[in-house]
Amino acid sequence: MASTRIREAREGDCADILRMIRELAEFEQLSHQVKISEEALRADGFGENPFFRCLVAEVVPASGELQGPRVVGYGLYYFSYSTWKGRNIYLEDIYVMPQYRGQGIGTKIIKKVAEVALQEGCSQVRLAVLDWNKKAMDLYKSLGAQDLTEAEGWRSFRFEEEAMKEMAGC
Amino acid sequence: MASTRIREAREGDCADILRMIRELAEFEQLSHQVKISEEALRADGFGENPFFRCLVAEVVPASGELQGPRVVGYGLYYFSYSTWKGRNIYLEDIYVMPQYRGQGIGTKIIKKVAEVALQEGCSQVRLAVLDWNKKAMDLYKSLGAQDLTEAEGWRSFRFEEEAMKEMAGC
Repeated sequence: MASTRIREAREGDCADILRMIRELAEFEQLSHQVKISEEALRADGFGENPFFRCLVAEVVPASGELQGPRVVGYGLYYFSYSTWKGRNIYLEDIYVMPQYRGQGIGTKIIKKVAEVALQEGCSQVRLAVLDWNKKAMDLYKSLGAQDLTEAEGWRSFRFEEEAMKEMAGC
Repeated sequence: MASTRIREAREGDCADILRMIRELAEFEQLSHQVKISEEALRADGFGENPFFRCLVAEVVPASGELQGPRVVGYGLYYFSYSTWKGRNIYLEDIYVMPQYRGQGIGTKIIKKVAEVALQEGCSQVRLAVLDWNKKAMDLYKSLGAQDLTEAEGWRSFRFEEEAMKEMAGC
């Protein structure tokens, strides 16, 4: 029987990662915002000073099966900083392909991120989720996460490039 | 007359920064969550691979005044990563001491952050704000920011150390 393993992403996974970034954005109904390229992912994640780290979930076929391993999910994160608690991890994306859901792969990815966080001396893992994605919110809560928007009233704000240029007087 | 300038923080500013981190957390009614120390700020922000960068707002007295410059505000940020847009800046904290508000110092700090972001090839600046802090939200909106929680439904989730340890099986 096929099994699933979580491993660190390699540069050669970038095509798969980009495919899944697009799938996730489509699911979130925000795919018009995706501007990233495979080249940018390679340069930003696998150079000397990577801007992010990534885990992939890989289905490994049982011996005798003709197919090679398939990348079916990913978790992309970076180190953030809290002035209250110090170094944290921010889990920017977590995604499992629809046909591989319900097998605990998402949970495996989050658990691996928690392990990395503890190894790196981080005291928190943060992430953002869309309010209609109840399934994801339920999963995070069942694993012990707190909804800070609900509990404390935090809202996310964003300045886009146009506003930044206006402010900088460009 | 006294004037205000925005400059990069130095290691020697950490006592002032910590004082203002505590003032901000108190204003946000969440000061029980502050665990950081001055030593941690020095190590995390001013070592070889800093985890954050910080700007301070300094009031420079007019010549003839006996007082030296006073640090009256700060903006602490780090580089984050969007799988849609690439490298971004996350403005973790922005604060101006109450008696120095209404003089445009907060705006000056945000403008400087926008300049840095553009210089560093970032396409977005993000931040979080408490929903009852209408004055701050109005300022960010007046400078062109979008409320993503309102517009798209994003909620912030957080795993604390206890949940992380549980997940990692510690």
